[in-house]
Amino acid sequence: MNDQIREDTAPVTDAEIFRGHEGGKLSVAATRPISDARDLSVAYTPGVAKVSRAIAQDAAKAKQYTWADRLVVVVSDGTAVLGLGDIGASASLPVMEGKSVLFKTFGGLDSIPLVLDTTDVDEIVETLIRLRPSYGAVNLEDISAPRCFEIEDKLKEALDCPVMHDDQHGTAIVALAALRGANLVLGRDIAAERVVVSGAGAAGVACAKILQAAGVGDVTVLDSKGIVSQGRAGLNPIKEQLALTTNKAGLQGGLREALEGADVFLGLSGALIDESLLAGMADDSIVFALSNPDPEVHPEVAARYASIVATGRSDFPNQINNVLAFPGVFRGALDAGARSITENMKLAAADAIVAVASDDLAADRIVPSALDPRVAPAVADAVAKAAVADGVCG
Amino acid sequence: MNDQIREDTAPVTDAEIFRGHEGGKLSVAATRPISDARDLSVAYTPGVAKVSRAIAQDAAKAKQYTWADRLVVVVSDGTAVLGLGDIGASASLPVMEGKSVLFKTFGGLDSIPLVLDTTDVDEIVETLIRLRPSYGAVNLEDISAPRCFEIEDKLKEALDCPVMHDDQHGTAIVALAALRGANLVLGRDIAAERVVVSGAGAAGVACAKILQAAGVGDVTVLDSKGIVSQGRAGLNPIKEQLALTTNKAGLQGGLREALEGADVFLGLSGALIDESLLAGMADDSIVFALSNPDPEVHPEVAARYASIVATGRSDFPNQINNVLAFPGVFRGALDAGARSITENMKLAAADAIVAVASDDLAADRIVPSALDPRVAPAVADAVAKAAVADGVCG
Repeated sequence: MNDQIREDTAPVTDAEIFRGHEGGKLSVAATRPISDARDLSVAYTPGVAKVSRAIAQDAAKAKQYTWADRLVVVVSDGTAVLGLGDIGASASLPVMEGKSVLFKTFGGLDSIPLVLDTTDVDEIVETLIRLRPSYGAVNLEDISAPRCFEIEDKLKEALDCPVMHDDQHGTAIVALAALRGANLVLGRDIAAERVVVSGAGAAGVACAKILQAAGVGDVTVLDSKGIVSQGRAGLNPIKEQLALTTNKAGLQGGLREALEGADVFLGLSGALIDESLLAGMADDSIVFALSNPDPEVHPEVAARYASIVATGRSDFPNQINNVLAFPGVFRGALDAGARSITENMKLAAADAIVAVASDDLAADRIVPSALDPRVAPAVADAVAKAAVADGVCG
Repeated sequence: MNDQIREDTAPVTDAEIFRGHEGGKLSVAATRPISDARDLSVAYTPGVAKVSRAIAQDAAKAKQYTWADRLVVVVSDGTAVLGLGDIGASASLPVMEGKSVLFKTFGGLDSIPLVLDTTDVDEIVETLIRLRPSYGAVNLEDISAPRCFEIEDKLKEALDCPVMHDDQHGTAIVALAALRGANLVLGRDIAAERVVVSGAGAAGVACAKILQAAGVGDVTVLDSKGIVSQGRAGLNPIKEQLALTTNKAGLQGGLREALEGADVFLGLSGALIDESLLAGMADDSIVFALSNPDPEVHPEVAARYASIVATGRSDFPNQINNVLAFPGVFRGALDAGARSITENMKLAAADAIVAVASDDLAADRIVPSALDPRVAPAVADAVAKAAVADGVCG
């Protein structure tokens, strides 16, 4: 399947891209057509009054008779859009529409973008609380760190429905799946590995956490000032917390010191690195250079030092793409009626992604293709089971 | 066409209604399918970044490359839902989904419901201001009076896009169209008529205003305490304003006094009236008993006294249904790039509705059928032209 995909990914032209966005990428349809007065009497007045009255008498009936329970809102304030930074809500909308298209295509979920003309944490949280009867789950997207952590935490506290910041947890789930896939190929144990996470933004923090939850031996996190370690001055609360549980080796310094003897490099920083840094890694090392559109190191260069290389791009092997995770995660959570998305649900999602690839694993096939239609249903099933096991349903 | 519709409107069963709402009535679709990696590169990363960057550089491009400019949000707090009253946001959702279905079916517009778990005027306004980059127009729905007036006024002030409370203006536009249709049948002049508007809620106030703007000779408005007149104690500011311009005849008292010699009765109150009240009306009187599902007076009873009778119901002739107005009004306003909906745009909508019916007018066909596919395009065209003439576009 990967071979076929690589064939299809000749560079797209600007004309093709803009044509593909003309008039926007989403459309709303009626699930049942209105073709005569009888249809109108059922879907609108007078029929609809009976349905509204039924929900007023039993709030649980909204799940059955409205679309809200299956609707994911894709929410952004446009402060950290792709690699473009803070370009504002309106300019972020094409990305959010694209996300809604992917929710539908891969997860079979209805989804609408809600982009917000405010960057105030409490205003964003408050807006979504007020809109709660309109939707079933919240996918946060392209919100800058550290505000994204606070917004997600407050929403999880306030809302009785699945909430996930995809730049954090979608990335983390797929990165973990890829590491498990790579380890299966190399016959290695995650518990024996030291992973260097370069970048302590949304994705870096979430990856560090899921890798720890998955049992990675040691995680070393770096931000723009070097290794995040206990006692380092000027750490924000998120990084202070990370320093307590990461860097068991007690390393000090920068990327060179961190990568010396490390098993895995996980690049999430956007900063290009010199290939000489990779030379000091352990044998059979793994390099995931996930920055888009420019990986931290070109995969062909990385391959001189590492046994397995992955990027975020579709035009190289081993694409680590969030679309492997989020449609199935939300679908599974909503199918199960989950009130939240737990650590176990995310871990189960990563395992399910690996399982789909397992028949066919190779050094250049550590994860399934982003377009593999088997992935989302497998992830959804695993996530729903984990939700039930965690007792967060109903 | 009306004959056919009446045949189709045998009472719908509860089972049919609930089946017609199972899973909700709306669905989101991609305008272009994602079937291979190339599609993914166009609609999502990396292609979408170029579109986002283009909008960041030129905000006007959002109109061309996102769905927002064609998206109507149907907004309610669930405080005045059909005849059910304050049943809350979640229970109002089936009505709002139905409205979105009608926007699509008749106006070809994408539309999503946003129902709000707050009834605070400023919170509702603030929420929509924050969401402004997400949509192109606001249809307010089923919000109780007098809050609905304040919310609409504040939104019109704050937003640079069409805003309309349909319970007010949709009803007013169609009632005016029906009155013009009835007058054509009877060969009468609107300027010579006295119209009694029973009900000073959202619809009553808006009807009184549009009838005045259309040149009705005199309008007498009643609330639950009787005729709204200058000097009456305890009037709220909206009714005080109405008292200044209505009731030129200086009538005092209740419905009996108001209807004595009146040409038109426009019922919007939900209160049943005794047929004896109609006996005092002028010759060739017109009775519009619009309360749903129970008209103020049964149309067969009203027909003993009036030359032309209309209701809001699909199972009697002359159905005065908002669906004749709102899809075309919003479509026309959005097509023209209107920043607001003006009085002239509403008057033009009413004229366009009458024009569609004009070939075929009769005492039992004063307005086109609610399902007549010619109506929305005609209304859209007239509204767009009026928007341009009023200089509110672009």
